[in-house]
Formats: sequence, C-alpha cells, structure tokens
Amino acid sequence: MNFIDGGVTAPKGFRASGVAAGIKPGSTKRDCALVASDVPATVAGMFTKNLMKAPPVVWNGIVCASGKAQAVFINSGNANAATGERGVADVCSTADLVAEGLQAPAKEICICSTGVIGVPLPMDRIAVGVRGCLESLSKDGSSDAAAAIMTTDTVPKERALEVTLGSHVVRLGAIAKGSGMIAPDMATMICAITTDAAVAAAPLQEALRDAVEASFNRICIDNDMSTSDCVLCLANGQAGVGQIKPGSPEFAVFAEALKSLCIVMARELVKDGEGATKFVEISVSGTATDEHARTIARAVAQSQLCKTAFFGQDPNWGRIACAVGYAGVDFDPAQLTLWLGDVQLVAEGTSTGYREEDAASVMKRPEFRIRIKVGDGPGNAVFWTCDLSDKYVHINADYRS
Amino acid sequence: MNFIDGGVTAPKGFRASGVAAGIKPGSTKRDCALVASDVPATVAGMFTKNLMKAPPVVWNGIVCASGKAQAVFINSGNANAATGERGVADVCSTADLVAEGLQAPAKEICICSTGVIGVPLPMDRIAVGVRGCLESLSKDGSSDAAAAIMTTDTVPKERALEVTLGSHVVRLGAIAKGSGMIAPDMATMICAITTDAAVAAAPLQEALRDAVEASFNRICIDNDMSTSDCVLCLANGQAGVGQIKPGSPEFAVFAEALKSLCIVMARELVKDGEGATKFVEISVSGTATDEHARTIARAVAQSQLCKTAFFGQDPNWGRIACAVGYAGVDFDPAQLTLWLGDVQLVAEGTSTGYREEDAASVMKRPEFRIRIKVGDGPGNAVFWTCDLSDKYVHINADYRS
Repeated sequence: MNFIDGGVTAPKGFRASGVAAGIKPGSTKRDCALVASDVPATVAGMFTKNLMKAPPVVWNGIVCASGKAQAVFINSGNANAATGERGVADVCSTADLVAEGLQAPAKEICICSTGVIGVPLPMDRIAVGVRGCLESLSKDGSSDAAAAIMTTDTVPKERALEVTLGSHVVRLGAIAKGSGMIAPDMATMICAITTDAAVAAAPLQEALRDAVEASFNRICIDNDMSTSDCVLCLANGQAGVGQIKPGSPEFAVFAEALKSLCIVMARELVKDGEGATKFVEISVSGTATDEHARTIARAVAQSQLCKTAFFGQDPNWGRIACAVGYAGVDFDPAQLTLWLGDVQLVAEGTSTGYREEDAASVMKRPEFRIRIKVGDGPGNAVFWTCDLSDKYVHINADYRS
Repeated sequence: MNFIDGGVTAPKGFRASGVAAGIKPGSTKRDCALVASDVPATVAGMFTKNLMKAPPVVWNGIVCASGKAQAVFINSGNANAATGERGVADVCSTADLVAEGLQAPAKEICICSTGVIGVPLPMDRIAVGVRGCLESLSKDGSSDAAAAIMTTDTVPKERALEVTLGSHVVRLGAIAKGSGMIAPDMATMICAITTDAAVAAAPLQEALRDAVEASFNRICIDNDMSTSDCVLCLANGQAGVGQIKPGSPEFAVFAEALKSLCIVMARELVKDGEGATKFVEISVSGTATDEHARTIARAVAQSQLCKTAFFGQDPNWGRIACAVGYAGVDFDPAQLTLWLGDVQLVAEGTSTGYREEDAASVMKRPEFRIRIKVGDGPGNAVFWTCDLSDKYVHINADYRS
C-alpha cells in the first residue's frame, strides 16, 4: 500500500472540479465542488446520527440504499439544514441540475451541503455553481474540489493511495472537510472517497462502516455532532480488475486500504481543528474490552480541562486522571498508569515523581501521545484530539455574525 | 420562606471560620475553613461519581453512613486526590487534629479538599490551618469560611433562609465553591449546608438527594466531573423545634426550603463560572418524560458551539437545534419550537422569519432564557449554563503552571 500524489481523481475514471459561485453572500472563495465518475459506480455512505438531519443527508441515504451513484456535488457556505420542505425541494432541484449535465439519473447524484444552518439555499447561486462545476470537470480538479468544500478549514484535505490486488493496481482517493462541530459516534464531517476498484454496494458499505469506525469515529475537536455529516465512497471498477468479492483476500486488502485512507483523513481533520495548536493521540489499554478503552479515550479526548491544559502546555495529569475516572468504565484507580510521550507520570494511581521539565518538554511538541493503562485486560483503543485554544472561542463566537 | 443575611452560621448553634495557612506555596489567601456545630448533628452527603474519588470523599462517605457529624473542615489549594495511601493517612490526621480541638470523635469530622490533583497535602500547613480555624470559630465566621474555600471562584458564595414550621422558625445556611470542573450528574463542587432543624439522618439524606438533583445536578460550566465533589448537610436541632418526621407537612416544607437553597447556590456557581459573561437558562418541554427533557437541556447546556455563540452574542439557533438533534431523545424535527427570551426564532422546525436585531438584543443581556419545545408530551426540565469565553481558556491553560 503506497500513498501517492492526488486526491479523488487519482483513481481511473473520475474527474472533479471546484468553482466560486457566491453561495455565502459576499464570498469569492470556491464553494461548489463536483466529483464525477465517467461510468455508473457502486456507492456506500455513512451519515450523521443527528435527528435534525439536513435534507441532503436524507437524500444521500436514499441514493446509497439503491447502491448506485455517478457523482457527488458539494456546496459550502450553507448547510441546507433546518430548512423544512423548501430544503427538500432544493436538494431535488440541485440533483436534477447535476444529472442533466452528466446525462445521468438524478437519483444517482449525491448532494452534500455544509455551512450555516437554518437559511434556505440560494438556488440561483447553486445553479451557477453546478454549471461552473460541470464545465470545468477534469482529471486535475481534485485540489479545486478540496478547496471548494472548506468552511473554517485552513488547509484543503486530499489524499490518495494505491494497493496491489494480485497482479493489478487499484487506487483510492479522498477529499474531506471539517474543522469544527466534530465529534465521534457518527460519520463526522464531509468526505468523498473514490476508487477504481470494482466492489458491489453491500460489501463496499461494510468496508466503509469499518473504516469510519476506526477513523472518523475516533476523533473529536469540539463535541458537537453536525446535522450534515456524510462520508461517501464511489467505486467505479475502472481499474480493470475483476469484482472484489467479500471474504476474499483481495477484499481484506481493499478494506484495509480504505481504512488507512480514512484514518489519514481523520487525523488531517484534527490537525486542522478550529484554533488547534496541538495534535494529541490518546491511547488506552488494559480494559476488559476495546469498547471500554474507547470510552475512556473519548472522555479524555473530549475533556475541556484536558484540552485547555494541552493548549497551556501544562502536564497537569490530574485532569487526565479525573477524566479517566468519570468515563463510566469500572477499574481499580490503584492500577492507573499514565505516560506522556515517553515520560511516565503515574504508576499505581499516584505520581512517579517524574521531573516536571521532562513532562513539559513533551507538551511543547506540536504532536504528542498520552498512554493510559488501567489494568491487565486485553482491551485497547486509540483516539485523536486537539487542544482547546482562545482562537477556537474567537472563531466560534465570531462565525456567522 | 425568606432569604436572610448570612450563611452557614445563620442557623442556631453553628460557628465558622476561615484562615490563611499557605496550603498553596506562596499563596496568602484564606485557604482553610471550619464549620462546626456546638452539639452533635445528623449529617447527609452527596458525592462525586468519579471513580478516582479523592480520599476525603471516601472519608465523608463513611462519616455520612454513620449519620452523625459535628464539623466540616475544608481546605482549598490542594485536592488531596490521586495521592494514594499517603492521601488516606492525611485525611485521618486532619480529622484527628480537628476532633481534638473540638473534643469530638474524629469519625464525626467531615473533610473536604479542593485544588490541584496529584500532589500530597502539606500537612504542616494543614496543622497551622486547623489550629487557626479552631481559634477563630465564631458566629460571624461564615464569610471567612466562604472566602477560604474559593479556588478560581471570583466571589464567595453564602446564602441563608428561614422557614416557618408550625409556630417555629428554622434556618438553613450554606457556603459553596465551584467555578470550573463543573458538570451535572453528580453532586458537583463543594457545598456545606447547615440547619438548626432536627431531622434524622435518613430523611435528611432523602431531602438532600432530591435537592441536589434539582440544583447542582442541573448545571454545567465545563463538562468535567471533579474528583472532590461533595455536598454535605448538617442538622443540629438547635432551633428547638421537635424532630421533623418524614412524610409530615413540616418535612415537605423543610425539603422544599433545602431545595430552594441548593438551587440558589447552584445558580451562583454558574454565574461565577470560569470566564463566564452570560448566565443562560435552558428550558425544555414537550417530551414524553422529564428525564428526556433533561437530556435535551443538558446537550444544549454542554455544547461548546452553543456556549461560544452565547459568548459571541450570536443568536445562531442552528447550533441549538443541532444540539437538540444529537441529544439522543427521539422527537419529530418538524415540531421543534424555540424561543430566545420572548422572541420566537423557530416554529415547526424552521425559521419564523424573526428580526435579527430582536434576537441579538436578547443575547446582549447578561442573563437570558432559551425555551425549547419538541412536541406535546408532559415532560419538562430546566438546566443552567454559562458561555464559553476566551477567558475560560486562559484560566485553564494557565492554572497550575
């Protein structure tokens, strides 16, 4: 498995584009993106569990249930969420516009919208965006598409990799956005994944679910779950390899590659978290089950007090121990062990008498790892989080107004 | 029921004091407090559910199980948490010192510690603090005690009230601290309550549990649950009224008074939340059960994105609708109704077309209410929260280091 240059257009038979259509009043940034397969593809999707699902999310669920899709159109600047009947009609109109241009059925066009909630889509601008995207579709368009889906993201996110299946090579590519309103337990943010492998819709869905569970469901920036989160994967079979059958060695390789791509993208989101200055890996072991380890890791990853301590570069392990203690998983506090980087801070539940300067030097790094062991069980899990800075507060206090 | 001047020494037969003992190196603020009853009292307590319970919390659990206590000693500047065997021994030694001075059994002395986690108590300074507190116990000492238990609190918190039971008057008083590491679902923070009513330990515990459920378990500042949270209530019977029997009209009046006192103290904590500039009441109705309403209110109260919008004075109701949607309670999004103060922002799940300036003017107030209705069910609940400001981040990034 090799990471290669490019994004969603690295796999054969995919083109993309990103244009500026003024979706957000006064904005001149790219805000409409299109990722299209030259031929009909199979599709899988993972969606927010938020009850206030935006109309595009509901629409994509219907597309994915059919298992077939040919394109993903994404706009930033407006989430088309909490927009009622009007929002539903706008999704259908957008799909019609894209479908007409691609000469494909509207029900094979996925639609994603991200941005402000509660404001109807400006359909005249959307029409401009769709037209512009259709006209500029190209093999070089992945970067433009990645740029067009950004909201508070500071860098576009695209990655691609290739993997050998027998004597053939298949490729996977992705673009993603997401910097705030990021929480686990759902497909967080928007991510469009392409592959030229041939995989039927049902096993593709299975592989995507596992990949999301190990990646986008293991990160948090703040703890808010968006109304618009979607991860979509289109497989168009243009690599010329035969259908990858579930249960085969090839499927295992493909699924692992998909998971690796999702993990890389998920980590990119956290690194670009709103106001983030630190990327922190929380690794928990010694629990009875992996699920227990995940619960503890998540509690630390979400703790405002831990995240402000990360920002302050303060090795205040008491806050970490505190979060471990309220996670809701039973363990013996006298067995708690905790490392910050390679410095062991806690053994048997109390301070090791480490040197403060050793601990402080780990926290000065832009990336570091916290390892927590709570017993001798076989369970373990990893979670990725960032710090909570004054800049996060300013971004979110000022956003929209 | 009348609120009156004073705090824990307003009820008959209680004295208090607060002195500076230098518990935190270099600090000259008051940091040791003592609240003592002239005679043995009954006692009830509510404690943190954090698994990493500090040794004083475990100790207080034992004291409360016996149902009898004569005093509460509290130090700030050090939480005596995650301190292992040494921490347990230090609690016992502290109780011995207080007990000797009061000529009471050590097992009737409650001990609370609040401050940094993971550092052993400086027992020489504690001894100085206990001695100073014993020497300065007085009927006027409640304010000193309230000041001594402050950590990042900016104002001391004490309140008292009196209530008439038949032809007699009984009084209740309280001091509390807590400004960060405040989350619901446990007795959050430290609060010492006194009353000169005569109530047996079991019904006192029942009344305290209900009062805490309706007050300290309905607030959040950040979402972190401390290792040291305690609410203790001592009833010494010195009002001269007969024993208040559970099930009697007098008990109902007493329990209601205790609840009112706890609610007032809980609101004080939120108003003094770390870096807080807004006090926000979240009121949810229309759910099947009160518990469902509480779950939704809590999701909004804890949302970082809602809290930063409060700070930014931005009537961004999309974030509120989003938090309502991920709370985990089933409802029909098309029935969502939302008021900000008296301005209705959302009807049937979408914008009412309200005037932005009306909504913005509500958010400019230091206190406002958000009312959320999700259906026609009988359930309702209230939660209190504050905003999330850059100052919160600075307080917690800089604290300890």
